[in-house]
Amino acid sequence: MGNFLECMGSFFCRQKNTNVRITLPFVCFLWQIAMIVLFGIFIRYDEESDVRKWLELKERNNITSDIENDFYFRYPSFQDVHVMIFVGFGFLMTFLKRYSFGGVGFNFMIAAFGVQWALLMQGWFHALDPVTATISIGVESLINADFCVASSLIAYGALLGKVSPVQLMIVTLFGVTLFAVEEYIILDLLHCRDAGGSMVIHAFGGYYGLAISWVLYRPNLHQSKRLNGSTYHSDVFAMIGTLFLWMYWPSFNSAITDHGSGQHRTAINTYIALASSVLTTVAISSLSDKRGNLDMVHIQNATLAGGVAMGTAAEFMITPYGSLIVGFCCGIISTFGYLFVTPFLEKYLKLQDTCGVHNLHAVPGMLGGFIGAIVAAFASEEVYSRQGLIETFDFEGEFADRTPGTQGGFQAAGTCVAIVFGLVGGAAVGLILRLPIWGDPADDNCYDDEAYWEVPEDEESIPPVLEYNNHMIHKHQDIAESNFSVEQS
Amino acid sequence: MGNFLECMGSFFCRQKNTNVRITLPFVCFLWQIAMIVLFGIFIRYDEESDVRKWLELKERNNITSDIENDFYFRYPSFQDVHVMIFVGFGFLMTFLKRYSFGGVGFNFMIAAFGVQWALLMQGWFHALDPVTATISIGVESLINADFCVASSLIAYGALLGKVSPVQLMIVTLFGVTLFAVEEYIILDLLHCRDAGGSMVIHAFGGYYGLAISWVLYRPNLHQSKRLNGSTYHSDVFAMIGTLFLWMYWPSFNSAITDHGSGQHRTAINTYIALASSVLTTVAISSLSDKRGNLDMVHIQNATLAGGVAMGTAAEFMITPYGSLIVGFCCGIISTFGYLFVTPFLEKYLKLQDTCGVHNLHAVPGMLGGFIGAIVAAFASEEVYSRQGLIETFDFEGEFADRTPGTQGGFQAAGTCVAIVFGLVGGAAVGLILRLPIWGDPADDNCYDDEAYWEVPEDEESIPPVLEYNNHMIHKHQDIAESNFSVEQS
Amino acid sequence: MGNFLECMGSFFCRQKNTNVRITLPFVCFLWQIAMIVLFGIFIRYDEESDVRKWLELKERNNITSDIENDFYFRYPSFQDVHVMIFVGFGFLMTFLKRYSFGGVGFNFMIAAFGVQWALLMQGWFHALDPVTATISIGVESLINADFCVASSLIAYGALLGKVSPVQLMIVTLFGVTLFAVEEYIILDLLHCRDAGGSMVIHAFGGYYGLAISWVLYRPNLHQSKRLNGSTYHSDVFAMIGTLFLWMYWPSFNSAITDHGSGQHRTAINTYIALASSVLTTVAISSLSDKRGNLDMVHIQNATLAGGVAMGTAAEFMITPYGSLIVGFCCGIISTFGYLFVTPFLEKYLKLQDTCGVHNLHAVPGMLGGFIGAIVAAFASEEVYSRQGLIETFDFEGEFADRTPGTQGGFQAAGTCVAIVFGLVGGAAVGLILRLPIWGDPADDNCYDDEAYWEVPEDEESIPPVLEYNNHMIHKHQDIAESNFSVEQS
Repeated sequence: MGNFLECMGSFFCRQKNTNVRITLPFVCFLWQIAMIVLFGIFIRYDEESDVRKWLELKERNNITSDIENDFYFRYPSFQDVHVMIFVGFGFLMTFLKRYSFGGVGFNFMIAAFGVQWALLMQGWFHALDPVTATISIGVESLINADFCVASSLIAYGALLGKVSPVQLMIVTLFGVTLFAVEEYIILDLLHCRDAGGSMVIHAFGGYYGLAISWVLYRPNLHQSKRLNGSTYHSDVFAMIGTLFLWMYWPSFNSAITDHGSGQHRTAINTYIALASSVLTTVAISSLSDKRGNLDMVHIQNATLAGGVAMGTAAEFMITPYGSLIVGFCCGIISTFGYLFVTPFLEKYLKLQDTCGVHNLHAVPGMLGGFIGAIVAAFASEEVYSRQGLIETFDFEGEFADRTPGTQGGFQAAGTCVAIVFGLVGGAAVGLILRLPIWGDPADDNCYDDEAYWEVPEDEESIPPVLEYNNHMIHKHQDIAESNFSVEQS
Repeated sequence: MGNFLECMGSFFCRQKNTNVRITLPFVCFLWQIAMIVLFGIFIRYDEESDVRKWLELKERNNITSDIENDFYFRYPSFQDVHVMIFVGFGFLMTFLKRYSFGGVGFNFMIAAFGVQWALLMQGWFHALDPVTATISIGVESLINADFCVASSLIAYGALLGKVSPVQLMIVTLFGVTLFAVEEYIILDLLHCRDAGGSMVIHAFGGYYGLAISWVLYRPNLHQSKRLNGSTYHSDVFAMIGTLFLWMYWPSFNSAITDHGSGQHRTAINTYIALASSVLTTVAISSLSDKRGNLDMVHIQNATLAGGVAMGTAAEFMITPYGSLIVGFCCGIISTFGYLFVTPFLEKYLKLQDTCGVHNLHAVPGMLGGFIGAIVAAFASEEVYSRQGLIETFDFEGEFADRTPGTQGGFQAAGTCVAIVFGLVGGAAVGLILRLPIWGDPADDNCYDDEAYWEVPEDEESIPPVLEYNNHMIHKHQDIAESNFSVEQS
Repeated sequence: MGNFLECMGSFFCRQKNTNVRITLPFVCFLWQIAMIVLFGIFIRYDEESDVRKWLELKERNNITSDIENDFYFRYPSFQDVHVMIFVGFGFLMTFLKRYSFGGVGFNFMIAAFGVQWALLMQGWFHALDPVTATISIGVESLINADFCVASSLIAYGALLGKVSPVQLMIVTLFGVTLFAVEEYIILDLLHCRDAGGSMVIHAFGGYYGLAISWVLYRPNLHQSKRLNGSTYHSDVFAMIGTLFLWMYWPSFNSAITDHGSGQHRTAINTYIALASSVLTTVAISSLSDKRGNLDMVHIQNATLAGGVAMGTAAEFMITPYGSLIVGFCCGIISTFGYLFVTPFLEKYLKLQDTCGVHNLHAVPGMLGGFIGAIVAAFASEEVYSRQGLIETFDFEGEFADRTPGTQGGFQAAGTCVAIVFGLVGGAAVGLILRLPIWGDPADDNCYDDEAYWEVPEDEESIPPVLEYNNHMIHKHQDIAESNFSVEQS
């Protein structure tokens, strides 16, 4: 009878069908074929990667050395960013005990799709040649595509374990689209500077993910509670992600800043802020535990908050000690977020945020936007020199008479635009994802790779049996010990 | 009686002796000492790494900046390639549940030997100064040595778990030797272009490994079947390898292409092709499972097929959408290979291919060779400009009057040479490896690190005992439960 | 009664209190705030990272291209070094079965603090502007800070699992301070060359850690013996550290050598020496086991000895075969160290060296110092050219009339200075660490993450219970089997 009830219960709980055999291949093929067609129509090599145009450019501009090709300025940073996107974000999401495949695997899938779509979307908004109606791409386009997709990967962090791969493809399709639009508004119309993307990547991506997660709220998610946690080795895997993100963040923020002192200074500022975040994260994490023990969740995430918050200001003359202060504060704020805000959001705002992107991306990104606004507003000719001001803030063309003060105001406005785009866009995408056709898992089937992956049958994959065994072992002990004493007597 | 028979069976099965205490140190010392002697005779710093010669070169050529040193053009790419060789290939081979030490450790050993031998072999064939009889090495030589050893590591993929470390040293010694010869024929005599090595590295290495594995066919390999699979965490380890290969493949293909637009374009094309492979791999993997579940084997391997297949064509003007199409097709072909061809080869051709190098290297490499031939054949002055054609295809000296069409023919011929070298060379090396002196494991001892490594005694390392315990537990349950009911009654 | 005795025993053994809830946050906050104040007073951007100064420098020196900024010469190498510090050292120390969090996590914490303190200390000694009393930092400062902190991480290797995070902060504070002083004496006063830090980093760091460990000798450490070992997967994690150290060591040694042929040659020499170390390590490891099996400890560590020993000589014209010989010898020496010297030190000198830094850093570092001295002493105008000698050894200013022979003497003296600083400084710091206020673990609580971390409750985290179960299972077997036979009869 108990068995029968169990079966029925399991039947009703699992009424959701996670079989994506039709939808996932369909979406992958459809979108990949669309990419081929659109690339054929629009995408071309730019002047520095096309063999003919590069020879012409060298002749026209009297370039004597191939080392002047933008490839040599940006390719090493591009590769660092690339590692952050695929290994950094991917492995950071392997921390769940039975969702490591989904963490690193789906991250891989959506990033690979996203960069293609980003090359098109960003190209249409930023680099469309009005005469030929084509988009020219080079190494900077690849970096920007990686940046663009980062915002969708951040959103994935809030959804980790609760959505199907098909839903993730939708999240990425709209995420990249929204990103290209808000980026156009912020960087082109408002003429903000945001090289490392505190606003356009982190604030947008964080709130985008949170809004989706809020719309997709699962009241019975506690049914998967047993899987919403880490194991010893899954936490070590996640540290691979953390460290590659942490180490390469200076490259992330400096990848597309100005040649020369711009890239140089951005890397230094980010390096310093990140170092500072680590210490305050450790301090708050230890302080919050009654035995003073550190929590891996904090070390894996809040240590990165300094990098997020320096995304806008790192290329400015924020000074080294200014960078330290930013890292100092953000390490504290982010760790407090993991301790208090994430549980609060879940309990009172019905917002389930698996990786705590609220604390690592949304809030530090927003703060980074405002920090950038303040630092920009206080920029002076004394510190930058006239020419330096012009180069750093691109006070050229129609923006030639903008002052640092005005720029600060626009930077702040840009931050608000990013947040609004994230919240509104996320809510809309969340509604689309509530359609019952995407193969998302049932509440008791979340955080479980078995829903979408062939999982090898090792000990760990069959916990119910193990638990049963353990249960039986304890039972035996009682019996056996009594037997034993009988035998001894 | 049963126990006795079991013991006897185990005795006869294990007649093979995996003790390599004499042979392995002997081979290591002998070859390392030979390297020292040969390096002493032949190897010198080249003009850009010798302090005197670099000063002279700068003066002679009016080079005003040290940034013109080839180091700054190629070192970042070299380091990416280096990571692919040691972490990429190494961790990709950690997927087996009890052969991770052998996967990453032997890969490390043979790569470290191979690069030394490659510096000599490639030097003799490509860079021997006829006057001084010495070989000059620089950063490009290091990249080429890494490339050369990659073909032997690919061959290791087919042999993983079935050979001894001494056999692997033999495989590498001959693999590097054969590579240098076929590379000389293909690149120098046939004057093919193959910067990323679709032909010379992947097609050669893949067929070399397959031919060896075919000669070493083990009819009773099913006796190790329990170990020929992954665990949850070994699959996550393998993803480290996959992702570093995937991310750095643009550096692999562009590492030795022409300065300037050459390196730039190659990186872009490879990046695009790889992105496309991921989506079609996911699609086919999902389509092939009745529940639509993804298979880690496909994600770990077939996603890389686009990079392999672009090894020749990536430096040409294949166009971005052309790259997408290559990645699209190769993701499909490679995944189909894992689904159907590898089982077919094992069942009907008696070819045991542990990592499926047939699907990841042999076939995509061959296809890459032919794709390169086609793209070369269609190269036009219109697209490349006259000067661009000369630079891209090196139509200089004795090859000054070669046309793109002819070049295409030679590229196709080069692909065939690589395959023939792989098959014939592999068969010959396989015969050498059948000598009973190399300490290879018995059929029931394959895929097991205990044969060649000191393995820590954790739970996982003693599966037979564990199984016994589990067996006993179940037995107890029956007894205990009956006892229990008795006590209750 | 037995239970009571056990409790009492455990009470006395665990009288030490590992609760760092007050001390750790206090130290972190205090030092981070001190950093902010000191950075505010002293640290400024240098000429190549300050937007105004870079514009002025370009104009003053007629620099036409931003690619001449030192950022483009050194940033890729910096990032490789950065990976070595955080992923390389961090993951190398994850090999213990239950101390992976502490290995990678505390490494992260002290490195992040150390680099800040190093920027100040190294700045005061090497780059303090006498007029403005400020320190100018650029990418080379970041590399030097990473180098400086490496010596403290090496020291951590000797102490792994036996100290508290607060003690590690003390080790780093004094380690960085001592480093800056000995570096000033060796590089500035003695005018030694030591680009890759055989002396200043490895010999100093190694002996510093050994001296601390000697002072902190624990006679009852055997009580934690069950945890002083690896598991299968923790060994694979450690290989991540090994390989990133091994692959990027050429960048480590070449990161701050001379532009042009200097960086180029250093990378080549290091690459070659490392390759050679791998083979001799494998040979000795296999030779030392009666079944010829390899030991992961050797492969993880001794393979790196060639890189350590080339830290000084790699930038000289040591010749490629000279590099091979250095790697050859150091692989052997280091593996012998792990086999014989570490046990000897523990047994007879009461020196507990968890990671064997004696064999990987102290001895190869010392040897590297003397190898550098010899190679410097034999430097000739014939090989280097006059200008090359001056550039390589900085025979300028007050050192203009130094000969290679004299330089060799000073190099040897520098090595001795590094060792003395390590031993004396380490002994003094060790005494400080013996104060009973730092929260270090009890003897039976070493190598255990539970002392300082929240550890997820998976099977592996409760070994005592498991052991008990196993014990009980065996007991049951006896009983159950007898029952079974009774039932059968």
